[in-house]
Amino acid sequence: MVHNAFDVKRYLLENKLFIDRALVHYLKTDHNSSVLHQAVCYSVLDGGKRFRPILTLAVGELFGAKRKTLLSFACAIELIHCYSLIHDDLPALDNDDLRRGKPSCHKRFGEAVALLAGDALLTEAFFIMSDPRAARVLGAPLISKLIREISDAASIRGMIGGQSTELELVKHKITPAVLEGLDRLKTGALITTAARVGAIIGGATRKDLDRVTRYAQSLGLAFQITDDILDAHEVSNDNSNTKEIANYVSVVGAAKARERVGGLLTACLREMQPYGSAAESLREIARYVAQRTE
Amino acid sequence: MVHNAFDVKRYLLENKLFIDRALVHYLKTDHNSSVLHQAVCYSVLDGGKRFRPILTLAVGELFGAKRKTLLSFACAIELIHCYSLIHDDLPALDNDDLRRGKPSCHKRFGEAVALLAGDALLTEAFFIMSDPRAARVLGAPLISKLIREISDAASIRGMIGGQSTELELVKHKITPAVLEGLDRLKTGALITTAARVGAIIGGATRKDLDRVTRYAQSLGLAFQITDDILDAHEVSNDNSNTKEIANYVSVVGAAKARERVGGLLTACLREMQPYGSAAESLREIARYVAQRTE
Repeated sequence: MVHNAFDVKRYLLENKLFIDRALVHYLKTDHNSSVLHQAVCYSVLDGGKRFRPILTLAVGELFGAKRKTLLSFACAIELIHCYSLIHDDLPALDNDDLRRGKPSCHKRFGEAVALLAGDALLTEAFFIMSDPRAARVLGAPLISKLIREISDAASIRGMIGGQSTELELVKHKITPAVLEGLDRLKTGALITTAARVGAIIGGATRKDLDRVTRYAQSLGLAFQITDDILDAHEVSNDNSNTKEIANYVSVVGAAKARERVGGLLTACLREMQPYGSAAESLREIARYVAQRTE
Repeated sequence: MVHNAFDVKRYLLENKLFIDRALVHYLKTDHNSSVLHQAVCYSVLDGGKRFRPILTLAVGELFGAKRKTLLSFACAIELIHCYSLIHDDLPALDNDDLRRGKPSCHKRFGEAVALLAGDALLTEAFFIMSDPRAARVLGAPLISKLIREISDAASIRGMIGGQSTELELVKHKITPAVLEGLDRLKTGALITTAARVGAIIGGATRKDLDRVTRYAQSLGLAFQITDDILDAHEVSNDNSNTKEIANYVSVVGAAKARERVGGLLTACLREMQPYGSAAESLREIARYVAQRTE
């Protein structure tokens, strides 16, 4: 395969380690030994893929942004992702006992601590975004704009809206269109914002930002559908409340799901076409997501 | 009584209505009819006292800020307060069936929706704070500074830290000093920030900001202790997990609690002394809190 000249696995690993180090820096304060802080660190520093912050870095670099200018917002987006996983895993929502092969936060620390750990992470994301050092580098108007962008994506109009729609849908028959609409909010909104934040920090033009947005919307949906395909291969968790219902594979079948992913990959590659080799990382990330086996 | 020339009840009611109207404006979007949005509105637009945002207005006006420049941050702080009540009431934490005489959010909408409604409100607070219209009026650097201030107060170092400490303390004997330390975080941090935000928007000097901070710290503690005194008079909710333990009255008795409130009121009045009649609203708010019967 021609595109193997770019080692995407190595790229993802190197960037993951870069993000991991920054997350440790943001979370490992020396003055906090509470159970809550342990729960926060347990849930964030646990070997996540760091897909969203890596996307922020990759898009930002396409538009010439320096990594250190991207880092605080990349990490803040990851914290929002981590908070949403903790709350999603709670008995009131998905009731998942496991997260990435380890006991989920509430299984390890109890429901009360897990609830507060999620709250703490969401709050900390905005604390990191408003760091005055970031404001000195990026300028205060950009900080304010990015906080608006990210809070909107994570809001009732975005990620939380998707989670809530999923709850309401449980009783009804789900069509592929309804499911895609839900996925575009539940997982798509934050992934799209992760990419857009990179473009905005990099000073992308309106037209470029629109391209990145379309790329990331297709990528986010491909990510969710491949997640569903991988889930369908695994033994389902018996405690799971909702996952089997809002799943692309159970709605359209594995073959059509794979086909849809192929179409989304094509859309991702098309959006990156104008940038030539500069967008190689983003093309390879899309290929990796579409073909991933883990 | 000499100070009755200033009608504090009327002042509080007028400002409450002003805040209520703004909250309706921020929450009542015409495109959202989801259960989640209903739960959000149910929990916010429910006759709360609006103590925190009123404090922001009163302090801001002392330093010459116009009300409309204070409103978005005042409302955002109220949304953070409302989110904390929803999550606090959940079975995993206080397990309260009632909130202000109505079923609590999870009793009315279920735990899943209540969890997400809290998440949505915390997120919306930052969305409102980063409104570009506010940035045009206040300037982006101030927006960023205020978001930093508020996210810190609501964080693991502030409000959430207090909630978590309370969970850890359940097993131990609590001293008045430990309880005050907890209250300074759990309720004090957000109340203090509500006042500080008013002063910062009003362009207060460092010295004035320090005065306002000390005023609000005393006021916040007085607020919590009078809450405990009022709670002790009520029939306790049988489902309550922790409230009876972390209560000032049960730790030092009603007489000493009253005495402490008196001392805190004196401290509040002392801090407002230099401002003369301009600080009458803040002095009367302190007297009202110290002597409140509801």
